[in-house]
Amino acid sequence: MTRVEFFWDVGSPYTYLASTQIEGLRQRTGVDVTYRPFLLGGVFKAVGHAAPLESAAKMRHMLHDLQRWADDYRIPMRLPGDVPFPLVTILPMRVAVAADAAGCGERYCQAVFRAYWAEGLDVSKPEVLAPVIAACSMDPTTILADVQTQDIKDRLRALTDEAVARGAFGAPTFFVGDDLYFGNDRLQQLEARLLTARS
Amino acid sequence: MTRVEFFWDVGSPYTYLASTQIEGLRQRTGVDVTYRPFLLGGVFKAVGHAAPLESAAKMRHMLHDLQRWADDYRIPMRLPGDVPFPLVTILPMRVAVAADAAGCGERYCQAVFRAYWAEGLDVSKPEVLAPVIAACSMDPTTILADVQTQDIKDRLRALTDEAVARGAFGAPTFFVGDDLYFGNDRLQQLEARLLTARS
Repeated sequence: MTRVEFFWDVGSPYTYLASTQIEGLRQRTGVDVTYRPFLLGGVFKAVGHAAPLESAAKMRHMLHDLQRWADDYRIPMRLPGDVPFPLVTILPMRVAVAADAAGCGERYCQAVFRAYWAEGLDVSKPEVLAPVIAACSMDPTTILADVQTQDIKDRLRALTDEAVARGAFGAPTFFVGDDLYFGNDRLQQLEARLLTARS
Repeated sequence: MTRVEFFWDVGSPYTYLASTQIEGLRQRTGVDVTYRPFLLGGVFKAVGHAAPLESAAKMRHMLHDLQRWADDYRIPMRLPGDVPFPLVTILPMRVAVAADAAGCGERYCQAVFRAYWAEGLDVSKPEVLAPVIAACSMDPTTILADVQTQDIKDRLRALTDEAVARGAFGAPTFFVGDDLYFGNDRLQQLEARLLTARS
């Protein structure tokens, strides 16, 4: 079975959009999707990018563009500016690593994206994350202690380093083997590729 | 009838991709498309962007991504690196303004995109442009003299300034009234919008 790796950071609005399409992609293609948390800020730093919003014009366009995608996908979405943005995502992404280890990686990914982008909650704060963690059948106290360990910190860094080594420069990043697909707006090409590979 | 404005610069590979889809868009939607040349370098300067390829990783991805689009569209395309890139496009874009004035704007746009991106010709050079101009039923000697006039230079600058004033920050840029669509990869959304407006 073909496998797709989905590298995600909760701070990225286009990755939220993509995250809402994963289940449909899986159902239509039969593909196995692996959720892989990473730290987008670390990626930008490693490849030498500025954050992608270099100008007021680009920012204005992004707000319209995000709303169009959310409308097309028929999903609730708050826009940057309505939510704290950009967000320091190191805590929620360390929680993602701990959630993976607990077998709840996908469920947590979906929950934390919804909490931030649909409900507008500031998921950089432990007290906001705690109920999200609990809703994924994990113990918040345990998980929030876990994420202070060097092991969890190292694993998130290793995931970020791995993505960069394989060519990532932003999010969402999808891999099918060595082939990299970048962006919510490449999901159709990715799906076409998966359907071709299957046939 | 709804009108779409298509702001183009021959130096942009994604704008070449988009240019090959205009005729199909027109046929499927009945929309009136106005070809509007501008200078992408002038846009970047005005909005304060660096050229979009900030990193080797992004450049590598772009080459794969362009090839995928060209394959999907079933069009010939040479990639940056196979053609001189980036190109100083001030001469071919001034010719575009002169071609518009001569009523050959669309035909020249299609011809100069093909010359550069399909045939790999260095269209920044007058001796390369001359046969392209001739193939559009214009006199190369007259046109290449025209483009030295202040009027043509001013008109290209005015088009660039207008695009920036209306929110452009890259190419291709499409406008439906005040609504801006950026990128070859937003053509589907643009088409859906046009079909909805028509129905």
